[in-house]
Amino acid sequence: MARVYVSAVMDATLEQAWSYLRDFGALGNYHPYFQNSRIEGGKPPDQVGCVRYFEVREGGGHLREQLLMLSDDEHRCRYRILHIDANWKNYVAEMHLLPVTEGDKCFGEWWAEWDVPAEEEAEAVERVKGTFRTFFACVDQAYGRR
Amino acid sequence: MARVYVSAVMDATLEQAWSYLRDFGALGNYHPYFQNSRIEGGKPPDQVGCVRYFEVREGGGHLREQLLMLSDDEHRCRYRILHIDANWKNYVAEMHLLPVTEGDKCFGEWWAEWDVPAEEEAEAVERVKGTFRTFFACVDQAYGRR
Amino acid sequence: MARVYVSAVMDATLEQAWSYLRDFGALGNYHPYFQNSRIEGGKPPDQVGCVRYFEVREGGGHLREQLLMLSDDEHRCRYRILHIDANWKNYVAEMHLLPVTEGDKCFGEWWAEWDVPAEEEAEAVERVKGTFRTFFACVDQAYGRR
Amino acid sequence: MARVYVSAVMDATLEQAWSYLRDFGALGNYHPYFQNSRIEGGKPPDQVGCVRYFEVREGGGHLREQLLMLSDDEHRCRYRILHIDANWKNYVAEMHLLPVTEGDKCFGEWWAEWDVPAEEEAEAVERVKGTFRTFFACVDQAYGRR
Repeated sequence: MARVYVSAVMDATLEQAWSYLRDFGALGNYHPYFQNSRIEGGKPPDQVGCVRYFEVREGGGHLREQLLMLSDDEHRCRYRILHIDANWKNYVAEMHLLPVTEGDKCFGEWWAEWDVPAEEEAEAVERVKGTFRTFFACVDQAYGRR
Repeated sequence: MARVYVSAVMDATLEQAWSYLRDFGALGNYHPYFQNSRIEGGKPPDQVGCVRYFEVREGGGHLREQLLMLSDDEHRCRYRILHIDANWKNYVAEMHLLPVTEGDKCFGEWWAEWDVPAEEEAEAVERVKGTFRTFFACVDQAYGRR
Repeated sequence: MARVYVSAVMDATLEQAWSYLRDFGALGNYHPYFQNSRIEGGKPPDQVGCVRYFEVREGGGHLREQLLMLSDDEHRCRYRILHIDANWKNYVAEMHLLPVTEGDKCFGEWWAEWDVPAEEEAEAVERVKGTFRTFFACVDQAYGRR
Repeated sequence: MARVYVSAVMDATLEQAWSYLRDFGALGNYHPYFQNSRIEGGKPPDQVGCVRYFEVREGGGHLREQLLMLSDDEHRCRYRILHIDANWKNYVAEMHLLPVTEGDKCFGEWWAEWDVPAEEEAEAVERVKGTFRTFFACVDQAYGRR
């Protein structure tokens, strides 16, 4: 079983980071690893149970992920992979934001757990870490006051 | 600050109880205290942020409640009151279901916290307790094998 | 990765079940699978970080488990295995009690997650399930009014 | 009902901040508002249920606080006030640390909820905010690499 945990402080308010990351179908518009994202069936991206389709750039195949939980009061979102072009199983991930009151910034944590063959685990872990890091970096780039 | 906690064992499976209680707009169809429930703006009842409108029977006025969180993997739902014909403020409630593996039943817990004038607290607490108890009793009645 | 979840309704109050199960070093006194339990180093059984030693009856070897978390307000206890005479790794378990207000009983849930070789998983899962079930049955036997 | 939430990023690792703040009886040794702290009855400071006694400097009276929950794996600690020389009731607070993996720092959040007469609430809230802020600042001062 692989487990990834990435956390970062973003130079944005909680409201800014949440409005950016809450949209479950928008990652193809800003995340450099992905493209052509959309919610299947024309559903709203905050409907629990909806599925997002998106493609990995440079021929990396496509993914389908389902929204399991969305919380506007705890700023939390959980989802699972329905399809990926890799030998991954039981993948569940959660994104969670908290305010940094001393400094008016935003703390974000993002974890994932899944099964992957042992010989592919190290590479898979690096891929997921990079994905999560980049999400936080995108928020920083969009709102950063530095 | 008032706080209510009600929990019960329902004679239903987790899947049955969740399919029954998950629908945020349906309470007017089965709960004997309420009528004429609907999600405002034609939104789906599992879209986080949606608002349900419903009426209290026998001239008890109407409520508007907003879905704050919905979790299909933890079987959890949280919401707040936007309007009630009473002096209640900051009302948040959560419904949470867990399986009873020894016996194939379903445990449900339902809590609420809110501010209410001290002289009205006892009556308000009884009203909310009765509402939650009755939700669980409705599931029992729909699926009970006794 | 193996995962076990067992839950039951005990014919005891929350206070009774918690007072019975909270004592991290006492399982050898009542659980039929185990004997000769004690907290190492003479520490109190509610000191977070303490280690319990106990033996599996009929020559099943011994275990050492460390208390990771104890909560008197949420009635929750989490621990990990430091030693077991089996090929188990990364074993963490949590016991959690909740009141059943409609009926004055106690709902208990107990989960564990750990790594075990695939060919031993089914048997390991049954062993842990049986252990947890029996904990709840012991409470029932001690307090049950049936 | 008063509620305080303070969070900060400390220039320390998670392990450093946790080892510093975990000791329930030590606050009198470093927090500038307090003095003469000790765990009553000679109990270890990580025994759930233990009570810490400490004094507020400059004649501010004394407090007794009881440890409700301690978690070494989630880096979490919850406690309640048993005695304070003020009209506060039902005071519960929780301290929680999380690692900041991007930068190797530590995020800390500290909340409290309690009842206090309306006319004293604003001052009480400022007092508690200042107390929590200063805890985090003490960690920063002890380990900061700036």
